[in-house]
Amino acid sequence: MKVKGKSQRSIWLKEGQAEKVCIIDQRYLPHEFRVEELVSSDQTAIAIREMHVRGAPLIGVTAAFGMYLAAIEAKAAGEGMEFLIRRKDMLLETRPTAVNLPWALETSLEAISKGKTADERIQIAGNIAVRLADEDAEMCRMIGIHGLPLIQKISRLKKGKPVNILTHCNAGWLATVDWGTATSPIYQAHDAGLAVHVWVDETRPRNQGYLTAWELANHGVPHTLIVDNAGGHLMQHGMVDMCIVGTDRTTVTGDVANKIGTYLKALAAFDNDVPFYVALPSSTFDWNLRDGIREIPIETRSEKEIAEIQGMSGNQIVTVRGLAPGSQVINYGFDVTPARLVTGLITERGICEANERGILSLFPEYQPIA
Amino acid sequence: MKVKGKSQRSIWLKEGQAEKVCIIDQRYLPHEFRVEELVSSDQTAIAIREMHVRGAPLIGVTAAFGMYLAAIEAKAAGEGMEFLIRRKDMLLETRPTAVNLPWALETSLEAISKGKTADERIQIAGNIAVRLADEDAEMCRMIGIHGLPLIQKISRLKKGKPVNILTHCNAGWLATVDWGTATSPIYQAHDAGLAVHVWVDETRPRNQGYLTAWELANHGVPHTLIVDNAGGHLMQHGMVDMCIVGTDRTTVTGDVANKIGTYLKALAAFDNDVPFYVALPSSTFDWNLRDGIREIPIETRSEKEIAEIQGMSGNQIVTVRGLAPGSQVINYGFDVTPARLVTGLITERGICEANERGILSLFPEYQPIA
Repeated sequence: MKVKGKSQRSIWLKEGQAEKVCIIDQRYLPHEFRVEELVSSDQTAIAIREMHVRGAPLIGVTAAFGMYLAAIEAKAAGEGMEFLIRRKDMLLETRPTAVNLPWALETSLEAISKGKTADERIQIAGNIAVRLADEDAEMCRMIGIHGLPLIQKISRLKKGKPVNILTHCNAGWLATVDWGTATSPIYQAHDAGLAVHVWVDETRPRNQGYLTAWELANHGVPHTLIVDNAGGHLMQHGMVDMCIVGTDRTTVTGDVANKIGTYLKALAAFDNDVPFYVALPSSTFDWNLRDGIREIPIETRSEKEIAEIQGMSGNQIVTVRGLAPGSQVINYGFDVTPARLVTGLITERGICEANERGILSLFPEYQPIA
Repeated sequence: MKVKGKSQRSIWLKEGQAEKVCIIDQRYLPHEFRVEELVSSDQTAIAIREMHVRGAPLIGVTAAFGMYLAAIEAKAAGEGMEFLIRRKDMLLETRPTAVNLPWALETSLEAISKGKTADERIQIAGNIAVRLADEDAEMCRMIGIHGLPLIQKISRLKKGKPVNILTHCNAGWLATVDWGTATSPIYQAHDAGLAVHVWVDETRPRNQGYLTAWELANHGVPHTLIVDNAGGHLMQHGMVDMCIVGTDRTTVTGDVANKIGTYLKALAAFDNDVPFYVALPSSTFDWNLRDGIREIPIETRSEKEIAEIQGMSGNQIVTVRGLAPGSQVINYGFDVTPARLVTGLITERGICEANERGILSLFPEYQPIA
């Protein structure tokens, strides 16, 4: 999408230096647009673990580029597949919740294993990473195409008055390669000339809402930042027409793991008859899980993410500590929204109900063999 | 309750200088314990409006002390009741949501109007303010006495394992004169030797959870700070035995206005069969309202409270701005939890159901005349 009027992706190979992978170091956003050049698989692991990049789809694609850098390292060290398997395991351990990460790594490793020489493996790994990036961008575009009619319908009912859409976390283009998932229908509605207005949840503790607000501001989409606590009040007063969120892992039964707090918004939407949609590329489905609350592992992250807050003081980025000493903190990264609270899933193939029948009607190739 | 082992109230007359009203300037908590001396009704209004003091009960008591300072001003200026009525109106406009504020001001003004001389009015205003402070402390103590058996019962069922109680905002002694409302049963359970553990919601945007954590740490009660987004996840996993929150205004039908985000926690509690209690002194009831969502005015506060965050950087209190320019913000201070989501109300007279029949059974003097 657009940054200062220029089209921008969230990950790309450096022009003329294809052994360098460029990412936006998102820790400095929304205050500073800083590009980081990844030159090793270790550096890639740090970038994922420390959330230089975040968002399930982008994590997967970044890991695939990490395998490409690992293949370059393997050649330099005279190492073969065993080294690459260890690198894959190392990259796999960076984040536990998103299913895109193991999926991308396995896709990459399986392809790489067909390479007969170190050079072939580099070429395959590079092609796979670029292909996954392109596919992700295309899937996100398609999510927008399928989600757009939902917004058009509300816009017609409201006779063109702004459609108020609430979103949580950043399921925008910064979390993917381009377009975003939850934001793709919104960008396409805006680009098509529909009046939309986005309620952006701040999304504590990491305030990814600031990223969503930054994205929307750069693309010119009207929006208002709110605290995570506010959504219920807005819905009670008819100020939200629909919710669209992303997901880090969705079970085949339609349970949705997403940023902590998503479940609370889904409850409020259900209580106020507000449609609650989840936008996802099919790579986010976990075809092996049936009970999201019991089975999806939930990452516990550093207490610093809660107790310390980063912002601008004058022209400097400063970190302050809000909590006084003497209190402990616990930081769960995600929660699971049960399928019964989800109105529908917006995928690259279309919209379906959040249940096994609905999901398999769009993705029949995952039908269990009887 | 205790601060560094010493008993402390949140408002008191300065020893030996009874024309000065002492408060804790809570804007500097949890980082700094700073006492402010109020010497005028204007200064009192600022202290309420700018949230040097906060919490519905303490706002009411502070306003009553403001009327005492106004009575002193009236004498100095040779003014009478008209001046005091104007001062009352000025103090009334400081905060719109809490019902304790108009209640305390009317109680004070009505009593003052019986004074025949400026000196009599000063004496009456002072006595009323002190009486309201003492009554508030006693009401809060009684709330704890009535709420304690709820915790004892869960403690027995859990065979003495810690009872996990979630609370939102600060309904602690800093929000009242002493004991707190939601925290009073917790303090009494802890003091009685029961194992309790409190999940403290951070409570964006003003992070009053830091105050609750500070209170609990000073009194020695085990607790963990969490982001507002986390409560649903904890409840889904059986990690919350009960919720207790305060309220700024509760209708005679049991609808509860409280800090923004309370409604979301009540929804999660209901969805997971977790008891959800609201603790309140009866001064918080609004006997005139029947529909909380439609009728309780919700304060919109400064966008700065969201976009800017205060914390410690080294030894200094620093304010940082988290949001980049180009995005608008809206800041609703409260939401309304419908009575159907409330398990019970804990008052100074006992526990009742959150409906008109339940409430009037404890407070029959408010029975409407047929």
